[in-house]
Amino acid sequence: MTVQAKTIALVGKYNAAGIAGSISALASFLDQSGHTVVLEAETASYIELDAFAVMSVPDIGKQADAAIVVGGDGTMLGIARQLAPYNVPLIGINQGRLGFITDIPLDRMMPVVAEMLEGKYTSERRSLLQAIVVRGGDQIFSGVAFNDIVVSRGTGSGMVELRVEVDHHFMYNQRSDGLIVSTPTGSTAYALSAGGPLLHPSLSGIAMVPIAPHALSNRPIVLPDSSEIVIEIVAGKDISVNFDMQTFASLLHQDRIIVKRSAHTVTFLHPKDWNYYDTLREKLHWNEYPSVEGALS
Amino acid sequence: MTVQAKTIALVGKYNAAGIAGSISALASFLDQSGHTVVLEAETASYIELDAFAVMSVPDIGKQADAAIVVGGDGTMLGIARQLAPYNVPLIGINQGRLGFITDIPLDRMMPVVAEMLEGKYTSERRSLLQAIVVRGGDQIFSGVAFNDIVVSRGTGSGMVELRVEVDHHFMYNQRSDGLIVSTPTGSTAYALSAGGPLLHPSLSGIAMVPIAPHALSNRPIVLPDSSEIVIEIVAGKDISVNFDMQTFASLLHQDRIIVKRSAHTVTFLHPKDWNYYDTLREKLHWNEYPSVEGALS
Amino acid sequence: MTVQAKTIALVGKYNAAGIAGSISALASFLDQSGHTVVLEAETASYIELDAFAVMSVPDIGKQADAAIVVGGDGTMLGIARQLAPYNVPLIGINQGRLGFITDIPLDRMMPVVAEMLEGKYTSERRSLLQAIVVRGGDQIFSGVAFNDIVVSRGTGSGMVELRVEVDHHFMYNQRSDGLIVSTPTGSTAYALSAGGPLLHPSLSGIAMVPIAPHALSNRPIVLPDSSEIVIEIVAGKDISVNFDMQTFASLLHQDRIIVKRSAHTVTFLHPKDWNYYDTLREKLHWNEYPSVEGALS
Amino acid sequence: MTVQAKTIALVGKYNAAGIAGSISALASFLDQSGHTVVLEAETASYIELDAFAVMSVPDIGKQADAAIVVGGDGTMLGIARQLAPYNVPLIGINQGRLGFITDIPLDRMMPVVAEMLEGKYTSERRSLLQAIVVRGGDQIFSGVAFNDIVVSRGTGSGMVELRVEVDHHFMYNQRSDGLIVSTPTGSTAYALSAGGPLLHPSLSGIAMVPIAPHALSNRPIVLPDSSEIVIEIVAGKDISVNFDMQTFASLLHQDRIIVKRSAHTVTFLHPKDWNYYDTLREKLHWNEYPSVEGALS
Repeated sequence: MTVQAKTIALVGKYNAAGIAGSISALASFLDQSGHTVVLEAETASYIELDAFAVMSVPDIGKQADAAIVVGGDGTMLGIARQLAPYNVPLIGINQGRLGFITDIPLDRMMPVVAEMLEGKYTSERRSLLQAIVVRGGDQIFSGVAFNDIVVSRGTGSGMVELRVEVDHHFMYNQRSDGLIVSTPTGSTAYALSAGGPLLHPSLSGIAMVPIAPHALSNRPIVLPDSSEIVIEIVAGKDISVNFDMQTFASLLHQDRIIVKRSAHTVTFLHPKDWNYYDTLREKLHWNEYPSVEGALS
Repeated sequence: MTVQAKTIALVGKYNAAGIAGSISALASFLDQSGHTVVLEAETASYIELDAFAVMSVPDIGKQADAAIVVGGDGTMLGIARQLAPYNVPLIGINQGRLGFITDIPLDRMMPVVAEMLEGKYTSERRSLLQAIVVRGGDQIFSGVAFNDIVVSRGTGSGMVELRVEVDHHFMYNQRSDGLIVSTPTGSTAYALSAGGPLLHPSLSGIAMVPIAPHALSNRPIVLPDSSEIVIEIVAGKDISVNFDMQTFASLLHQDRIIVKRSAHTVTFLHPKDWNYYDTLREKLHWNEYPSVEGALS
Repeated sequence: MTVQAKTIALVGKYNAAGIAGSISALASFLDQSGHTVVLEAETASYIELDAFAVMSVPDIGKQADAAIVVGGDGTMLGIARQLAPYNVPLIGINQGRLGFITDIPLDRMMPVVAEMLEGKYTSERRSLLQAIVVRGGDQIFSGVAFNDIVVSRGTGSGMVELRVEVDHHFMYNQRSDGLIVSTPTGSTAYALSAGGPLLHPSLSGIAMVPIAPHALSNRPIVLPDSSEIVIEIVAGKDISVNFDMQTFASLLHQDRIIVKRSAHTVTFLHPKDWNYYDTLREKLHWNEYPSVEGALS
Repeated sequence: MTVQAKTIALVGKYNAAGIAGSISALASFLDQSGHTVVLEAETASYIELDAFAVMSVPDIGKQADAAIVVGGDGTMLGIARQLAPYNVPLIGINQGRLGFITDIPLDRMMPVVAEMLEGKYTSERRSLLQAIVVRGGDQIFSGVAFNDIVVSRGTGSGMVELRVEVDHHFMYNQRSDGLIVSTPTGSTAYALSAGGPLLHPSLSGIAMVPIAPHALSNRPIVLPDSSEIVIEIVAGKDISVNFDMQTFASLLHQDRIIVKRSAHTVTFLHPKDWNYYDTLREKLHWNEYPSVEGALS
C-alpha cells in the first residue's frame, strides 16, 4: 500500500451493535481521508451506514486493497478464513483487551490506521490448514482453518482411537480425547491449553497436539508444513472434526481426515512498532512470578 | 476371612463369553474347596453354570463373604461401585495385561485365590466419590464414582465455563474442556492423561484436574477428602457429568454438581506379596528411558 | 491469643535497611498498645531500636506469644524453620506484592495487626519435613524444610540417578535433574515450576516431584505424610541436598537421604477474612485467559 | 556412494574394550569387500588393529567417504560434532538397545552395512547449533551442538535469571533452573525431559525449552532456525553453558551466549527401510497404554 487512495473494507464483530459507533466513525474518517469505504454484507445487516456500499466477502476479496476488522481474534479468524483465497491484507482492531492478531486498541484506531495507510506498517504472512474428510471413496466435507483442525470425542463417551499417518508413514494409534492439528497462529489458542508449544508465526511448521492422551509419551510433535497428515477414526462415539471451532462435521468409524497446509496465506498488517514477542509477553503475563520469593530468589 | 467355608460371588466381564471356561473352572475349584459359590445375575445371563445359585448384586452385598471379579479394571470399577454400600471385599483377576486393581493373572488364579482364602492376603481400602446434580432447588441426579466424576463439554462446542467453590469458598471460574474430580484410584486413569499427579491409594485426598484449561496456571490441585466441591455450569453447550465414564447426566447452565467423598469405601484383597509401587512401576514402564544415552548419561 | 498484653517478637528481612522505618513504627504501635516488644537478634544487627530488648530465636521461641515477620515469603521460610520447635504463631507482613504466606500489606499493617491481637484472626497449621543424610552407617547431616527438600545435580553434569524407596518398598530408579520432596506449603514454590500439583495446606500429604525426568511416566506423586522416603544417590556428579534452597549438603554416591514429616508444625495467623483460594487466585493470575477469544469462547 | 571401493572410517565408543571384537570383525569384513578401512585415532588407542591405518578426526573429515560409529547415541553425538565441518556421512551401529540415531543392531551390522555400501540407504540431513560466549566485548568461548545448548544453574543455588532476545527483539526475563536451546535431533533428549515438543528432523526449527520456569506461562517455543538467540546472564550462581552435555564453560553475570544454526549439517545414512516414526514409536513406547482399561476404553 502507498499513500494513494485505497478501497478499504470494514468488517465488524458478529451481532456487535455496540461497536456500530466505532465502525461509523472509522468509515467517516477513512472516507474523509480520500479512501473508498465498503461495508461487509453481514456487518451491514446489523449496522446501518447508508453512505457506504455493501459488499459480499468474495467481492471484497476481488476489489478491496485492505480489510479492517473491528472485534476480537474470533472475528478475525472467521473473516481471515473466508478472505484467504484473495490475498487481501488484514488490519485488526480490538475493542477489548488486545488479541494475538487484533492488536490495535479501539480508542487509538484512527491515528494508527492513518499511519498504516501511509505505508508505515509491518507486514506478516500466516499459513492456513485445509482438510478434506473422506468416507468410503468419497470426499464428504472440506474446510480451511486459520488456528486449528480438531478431531475430538463427544460428551458422555470415553475416548477416541485415531490412527495417524504422516507422509504415508504410520505414526501411531492414539487413544485420547482428541487430536489438534495447529498452525503457528493456533499455537497460542486451543493447542496451548492442551500442552502444545508456542510456534513462531514464521516457522514453517504444523503442531500435532494430543488432548489428554492415554500414553504419557504421546507428546506434541512439530512437523514441517509440507507434511500430509491422515487421521483415521478407529474407535469412539460422537466424534467430530472442527475447523477453528467455528464449523464442523460429524464423523464415523473409518472416516479419514486428510490435512495439509493450504495453498493460501493471510497477510496481516501491524503498526510499525508492533512486535510478536511484545504481544506474547503481554498476553501470557510473562515476567510475573507466582512463586514463593524466598525459596526461589 | 479365615480358612473356614465362605460364600464367594463370581462376577465376569460384560458379554465376555471368552472367559466362561475360566469362570466355570474357578467355580468348580472353589466348590470343591468347600466354599459356597454364587454367580452374579448379569454374569449368569451370558455364562451358563447350572450348578450354582444366581444372585443379584444387592443380595451378593448382603450374603457374600467376598466377590471375585474376572475381567479388567473396567469390570471391577462397575461392580465395586455397586457393591460399595455392602462392604464386601473384592478380588480381581485379569485375563489380559494386569490392571491397577485387577492384579491376579488368569493363568495363576487357582493357587493364588486358594492362598488368599486361607488368609494370606493384603487388604486395602479405597475411597469413592459421590455427587448430586441440583437444578433449581431440586436434586435431579445422583451417582457414585470409584475413579472420577467428570464435567465436560460436548462435541463441536468450544469450551465450558465452570464456577468452582470448595467448602463454600469461591475458587475460580475455569474455562476448559472440562474438570475431573478424581479419587486416588482414579489418579492413574483419565486424570493422569489430563496431567494430574499420582495419588497414593492411602492418601486422604481428592484431585481436581482441569482438562485443557485456558489459563495456564489452572493446575491440578489436591484437596483433603473432607472437602465439598461445588461446580456450577456457567457457559458451554452439550455439557455432561460422567461417573467413571460409565453413567452420565446431561447438564444445563446453572446446574450445580456437588461432590463429596462417599460414606462408603471398597476393600480390595491382594496376594500377600502385592505392592502398590510394583504395580505402578510395571504399568507406567518406569525404568525405561527413551532419551539419547550420550547426551544424558 | 486474647486481648490481654502479649510479648511480640519482630523479625525483619535480612539486610533490609529499607524496612527499618516500618519495623520501628510497628514496634512503637505495639508498645503503646500495651504489648511487650522484642527484636530478633539478627534483625537488631542492622536496625537500631534501642528502646526494645533484643532476643535470640530460641529465646523468642520460649518467651514470645507471637512473632511478626516483615519481609517476603523467603524471610518467613527462614524464621519459621527456626521457630518450628517452639510453637510460636507467626504473622507475615509483606513490603512488596503479597506472598503466599506473608499476606498483610505493609501499608495496612497497623490496623490489621491490632485487630488480630484482639483475637480476630484465622489460625492455620502447616507441616514441615525433616531429613537426615546417612553416609556409611553415620548420620552426617540433618535439616528441616518448610517448603521442600531437593536432591539435584550440579552444573556441567548430565543427570543424577536416584534410587527411591517409600516405606521400605522399592519405588524406582529415577534419572533426572533431581527430585523435589515438597510440603503443601512448598507446592506453590519450586515443585510447581517443576510440574507438581498444588496441595491444599490442610492435606496430609507430601509431593514427590521429579525435575526433568528421563522417563516421561515419572510423574509427580502425592504420598500420605506418614510416609518415610529414602533417596539413595546412585550416579551423577556434584549432587547436593537443599533445604528450602537456603541450606544444603554435598552428597556422594551411596549416600542416603531419609525424609519424613517433622514432629513440629508451624502456626500462621491470618486476618479474619483471609482465604487460601483468594491467595491462590491472586498469585496465580487465575481468571486471566491468554487464549484467542474467538477460537475458544 | 556407489558400489565402488570406499574409504571407511571406524569409530568406537570411548573406552569400550567390549566392542573391540565387533570393530575388528567389521574392519575385516569391509577390507575383504575391497574398501579401505581407517581407524579413528582415539578409538585406536584402546583397540589394537595393526592392519589398518590410524587417522585423526580432521583427516577422516578430509579423506573418508563415510564413517561408521559403533556405540550409542552419545558416541555418535561426539563424533558428529567433530565431523560436522567435513560433510562425511555417518552410519550408526548400536551395541545395546537401538538409539534415535544409531539404528543398526550390532548383531546384524555386516549384511546391513554391505547393502548400504551398495547404495541401498536412506539419507537424512540434520542441523546443528553453534554458540559463542561474549564477556565484555570479547568472545571467550565457542562451541557446536548436535542436540542442545543448555544454560543452567549450579548445585545449591536457587535459580538463574536470563534475559532472552531473539533477532534483536526482547523476549523475556526468565527465572528458572535454566534454558535449553535444542535442534530437532535434541528434541528427543534433554528438551523432552524438560517438557519440550518433539520436532521432526526435517523441520527448520529450533526449540527453546525452559527448565522448571517460575512463570507457568513460560512455555516451550519453536523458532525458525534462521533465528539468532541471545541469552544474557542476569542473576544466579555457578551458571554454565553446556554443549550436548559434553563440553561446557562457566559463566558470569552479564555474559552473553549468542546461539545460531551452524553453517554445517550432518548427514546420516540409514538402512533403506528405516523410518523416523518407527524409531519414535519404538523408543517412546507408543501404543502402550498405562491407564485403567475400563474407565477409558
